[in-house]
Amino acid sequence: MSDISQECQTELTGLRREIDAIDQQVVDLLSKRQKQVEHVVALKKAHNLQVYHPAREEDLISARRQQAREAGLCPDYIEELYRVIMRRSRVEQTGQMAGKAVKPGATVLIVGGTGEMGRYFLDWFNGAGYRVRSMGSKDWPNVAALCDGIDLCIISVIIDRTPEIVERIGPYLPPDAVLVDVTSIKKVPLNAMLEAHPGPVLGLHPLFGPTTSTLDKQIVVATPGRDDDACRWVIDQFSLWGSIIVMSDADEHDEIMEFVQSLRHFATFAFGQFLASKNVPLARSLEFSSPIYRLELGMVGRLFAQDASLYAEIIFATPERRALLKDYINSLNKNLEMLEKGDKSKFEQEFKKIAEWFGPFGEQAMRESSFLIDKLIERF
Amino acid sequence: MSDISQECQTELTGLRREIDAIDQQVVDLLSKRQKQVEHVVALKKAHNLQVYHPAREEDLISARRQQAREAGLCPDYIEELYRVIMRRSRVEQTGQMAGKAVKPGATVLIVGGTGEMGRYFLDWFNGAGYRVRSMGSKDWPNVAALCDGIDLCIISVIIDRTPEIVERIGPYLPPDAVLVDVTSIKKVPLNAMLEAHPGPVLGLHPLFGPTTSTLDKQIVVATPGRDDDACRWVIDQFSLWGSIIVMSDADEHDEIMEFVQSLRHFATFAFGQFLASKNVPLARSLEFSSPIYRLELGMVGRLFAQDASLYAEIIFATPERRALLKDYINSLNKNLEMLEKGDKSKFEQEFKKIAEWFGPFGEQAMRESSFLIDKLIERF
Repeated sequence: MSDISQECQTELTGLRREIDAIDQQVVDLLSKRQKQVEHVVALKKAHNLQVYHPAREEDLISARRQQAREAGLCPDYIEELYRVIMRRSRVEQTGQMAGKAVKPGATVLIVGGTGEMGRYFLDWFNGAGYRVRSMGSKDWPNVAALCDGIDLCIISVIIDRTPEIVERIGPYLPPDAVLVDVTSIKKVPLNAMLEAHPGPVLGLHPLFGPTTSTLDKQIVVATPGRDDDACRWVIDQFSLWGSIIVMSDADEHDEIMEFVQSLRHFATFAFGQFLASKNVPLARSLEFSSPIYRLELGMVGRLFAQDASLYAEIIFATPERRALLKDYINSLNKNLEMLEKGDKSKFEQEFKKIAEWFGPFGEQAMRESSFLIDKLIERF
Repeated sequence: MSDISQECQTELTGLRREIDAIDQQVVDLLSKRQKQVEHVVALKKAHNLQVYHPAREEDLISARRQQAREAGLCPDYIEELYRVIMRRSRVEQTGQMAGKAVKPGATVLIVGGTGEMGRYFLDWFNGAGYRVRSMGSKDWPNVAALCDGIDLCIISVIIDRTPEIVERIGPYLPPDAVLVDVTSIKKVPLNAMLEAHPGPVLGLHPLFGPTTSTLDKQIVVATPGRDDDACRWVIDQFSLWGSIIVMSDADEHDEIMEFVQSLRHFATFAFGQFLASKNVPLARSLEFSSPIYRLELGMVGRLFAQDASLYAEIIFATPERRALLKDYINSLNKNLEMLEKGDKSKFEQEFKKIAEWFGPFGEQAMRESSFLIDKLIERF
């Protein structure tokens, strides 16, 4: 399949040159488009308008799909392209909005501001033009001065130390300052904050790490503590940065996070642990891989490329979490007999029961993961 | 953040209209581009040229990145768009190539042609213009006629029955017919085929299911059995359809697949089993989710949206596989004590050892999965 005549080669080169010329025009138009988007941003900024405008985005997608049909193109294809273009435009807008403060002139103290997550928030609040102070463990002698006149105090220290630090700083806070924590559990810190501070209290759990470069569509769970109106501007600030705010209460949050964080990370950890113990030939196994395996192995590798103490903290955060993980291991043990006997029909029976429990989510998962598999094939 | 003046609204509408006009031009250009691609396809088809041309694709990407820089656009952004455009163009080309036979006029018999995977291959070979015959379990009385004069016999039945069916059909095959199986293990079927048929023998393991609409970049593992030259055209046919062929031997294949398929699917099964037993509020947990959790939960849901017997077959295929899964459960049990004691430092120590074992793969995994997370955010 590799011999190719001179004539055919010349024709191919000509066609490719024409394609290149078309592409040149496309890129020029996209550059023009970006300039128009910049005007939109300037306008939104001047009028304090929100960046993400779902209805406008869906209208635009529908119009492009219609156009695609008229031009003889596959609508899904054009939609896919425009999802990329619109995300770009959103990131561009969010980036420019980052400099906007919901409460201009406010002073923010970040306790644990020398830690990774603390520095991350420091940058964001700084970028929005707030007066930002950082407090590390060595700054306790200056705590009164650091707390003087602040509008917001963010506690960004490890879970285990959060209650103690909240208790210690409480007496120094101005009575109307908003007290916020950002740990990945909410019940214990929220109670500690309510106890230590008579003013506005808010629990936040940002579901992203300090390597996230844009807050666009990133989730922040908010569990109100006291005086929601006074806390409002903090939530609005995260919205302005592009985050999606999910309102919850501390009980619900902690219960769901046992699964979303603790169980999931532990299962991934245990899988990687087993691969390492068996010394699986990783690179060669990837050559043999369906995109799904690549994706799943990528999730495992990703965990171990991150900070051990961060995951230790999440996994061991509460006795409830550890009990859940023991349950998980015990649940796996129940399959030993089935494996021992090679009992396929038991497996199928169990499989169908679980499939029923998943219900319509299965189809949604198929659709979403198929989309990602396509992306993975496209790229790698 | 929601009040908006009339003047600002008018200006916004004007800008959006300009953006729409630009988009109209972009779609028109993409339609023109597609027509040029169709010419390229016709040319490639006439000269039997391969669709996927990695060097040309990388050249094109580099050129577009350069253009992006000159036009003041982010090169990664333009690359992302062009990956979508090129995949489209490849799928388009592959689709048209599907009708091309590497060995025109050859006759193909698909044993198990009434099963899902059998029907899938039947469609592909039919589409390429081969003479295709299908054989189900009721067709044994006609086996001699069905085998008469065939060039290729594909065994597409469940793993457990493959050796027996190979043995039974062997005597009816023309001596120069290529005998191929497509099960997900290779040692046992390959040996059975070599024993039953003195002619060309090839083991294939297509790493995709019957719902895959394009073979573009889909992996097929090939384990040669006998007379590679005579088997060549079968491999070439899959290449022409866009598949990537990975050459291996049966031992290596089976060993790697224990992990890539059996372990992975079992771990996913056990995770879903536990979620179901705890009756986790799926929908609400998704609202709370980082994109990674969504992705991982999607992988679990995806499994249970598929066929129970298919996964039973993969997981229970060999005694080696079942032994590996028991090892896996036992490996998890080793963590019980650590959880019991809440021993974070033991966890961190173990974590770091595993991270070291993963080595540079961790970074690659970070990069690839971050890319996918962006895609997920973009879309959902």
